[in-house]
Amino acid sequence: MKIYGGIEAGGTKFVCMLGTDPDHVLAEERFPTTTPAETLGRAIEFFQRAAQGHKLIAIGIGSFGPVDLHAESPTYGYITTTPKPGWAQTDLCGMLHQALQVPIAFDTDVNAAAFGEHTWLPENRALDPLLYLTVGTGIGLGAIVNGQPLHGLLHPEAGHMLLPHDRTVDPFEGDCPFHGDCWEGLASGPAVEKRWNRRGETLPPDHPAWQLEARYIAYAVANLIYAFSPQRIVLGGGVMQQAGLLDRVRHEVQRIINGYLQSDRITRDIDQLIVAPGLGNRSGVLGAIALAIQTAR
Amino acid sequence: MKIYGGIEAGGTKFVCMLGTDPDHVLAEERFPTTTPAETLGRAIEFFQRAAQGHKLIAIGIGSFGPVDLHAESPTYGYITTTPKPGWAQTDLCGMLHQALQVPIAFDTDVNAAAFGEHTWLPENRALDPLLYLTVGTGIGLGAIVNGQPLHGLLHPEAGHMLLPHDRTVDPFEGDCPFHGDCWEGLASGPAVEKRWNRRGETLPPDHPAWQLEARYIAYAVANLIYAFSPQRIVLGGGVMQQAGLLDRVRHEVQRIINGYLQSDRITRDIDQLIVAPGLGNRSGVLGAIALAIQTAR
Repeated sequence: MKIYGGIEAGGTKFVCMLGTDPDHVLAEERFPTTTPAETLGRAIEFFQRAAQGHKLIAIGIGSFGPVDLHAESPTYGYITTTPKPGWAQTDLCGMLHQALQVPIAFDTDVNAAAFGEHTWLPENRALDPLLYLTVGTGIGLGAIVNGQPLHGLLHPEAGHMLLPHDRTVDPFEGDCPFHGDCWEGLASGPAVEKRWNRRGETLPPDHPAWQLEARYIAYAVANLIYAFSPQRIVLGGGVMQQAGLLDRVRHEVQRIINGYLQSDRITRDIDQLIVAPGLGNRSGVLGAIALAIQTAR
Repeated sequence: MKIYGGIEAGGTKFVCMLGTDPDHVLAEERFPTTTPAETLGRAIEFFQRAAQGHKLIAIGIGSFGPVDLHAESPTYGYITTTPKPGWAQTDLCGMLHQALQVPIAFDTDVNAAAFGEHTWLPENRALDPLLYLTVGTGIGLGAIVNGQPLHGLLHPEAGHMLLPHDRTVDPFEGDCPFHGDCWEGLASGPAVEKRWNRRGETLPPDHPAWQLEARYIAYAVANLIYAFSPQRIVLGGGVMQQAGLLDRVRHEVQRIINGYLQSDRITRDIDQLIVAPGLGNRSGVLGAIALAIQTAR
């Protein structure tokens, strides 16, 4: 039987999967991200073991970044300038291809997640652009536009967008080492922890932290609505697990846009525009499988 | 001979053109935008007269908005909710099709301009995404992504992005009727005039207005770089005619991104990333011709 592999290569954990679609998953494994040699060794071992008796056609990878997505570049398929110890200039695609001898599809973790939500959920297939945002340790954007993941010069880095920041309301200076109070500097998980001196999960739902968090996310989401005119925005990541936050973001987006965009999906059915991931925490790895299938066509 | 028509339908003037490409323009006419009946009447008359002896294959329109771009919508091809007197709910495509009996391609003025810069300039063809921004009476974004103009739920309205606005430096409250100090509310031609109590053209090049203007445009351009990772950004529109402004914007973009994006096109060759329109003030109408050619294929 023909099968495909998917890897969600995250900064803290790797997820490996073997299968053909969300309803036909043969094997799945999660393990912590340690050194490149050890972590990729475990991934290679997983595929060698789990694929026995099947024909492994291709593997897709959705990786933490920054990554090189230019097919013609000498460092295509690399994780490039990451500050993560040991991982800078890691030839992810090359190492996997050498060990497993199958075509490797490669994209960012967030583009893979966007492609997964786009490919595997019938209700999403006609919704273009589709944006996938993760708000967690970092903030990232993946996008499907005119049917394909968005690459360009590098790849989207929307976590670093500059937003209104009223220091009379929120004097926190932000914690992005490059930009201070960019979106990620104000609203990532570590930024929330630094501002309130405790981890976000321990802040009660009625704490003012969440209204402020909803506002920053909503400024960015409104900007992305103005820029892309998306038909669906999927909000994933650890911070979005907070009860009630998704609804607060929807409400703030409506308040910010203030009736300017006359579309039912904004003024009335915003719960259809801004949604939680339909694939739960498997958007990335299932998207990697979708990338593998596409590359084998 | 087979020829194509292009219309740049602007809020203050219409530009009509007949030809096959930038080097083969048979006829061109510019006239003020008055009532829909009179203005479209002049456009129809132009094509009927100028196309005599040729085979007119199709017409492309790049229009001021908001417009309806959904092919399956009952108001496809309409200018929709514009505040411009007499123009709300105008069936632009229908009126032209009825009079001229050729296929009509339809898009926003800025998407047409982006498509023109993408199609007709060989150096731009491989540059994707390509963004076209106009900074003038209004601020608008057109985008070519994965080879095609960006549409989505409505169409991009990036002029209304929310940006950092330090009121201790610039107490101007902004003049957008919906959002106050959104990008357009701070940086459009009318906003500049309102803040300084004189028209922008009369402000000398060393006036502090221009450094402030460059900063707001650069915040927005940086956000669009983070969102789209474009390979080219074309900055057009009346305000960008100001001597030295383009260079100030480039410099401010570098300052804002602060080395975070490691690409030569940002850190070193930003004059290759952020450029003036290669087609001058004909990007829109030549883009409309390119849309006509595409629709006839």
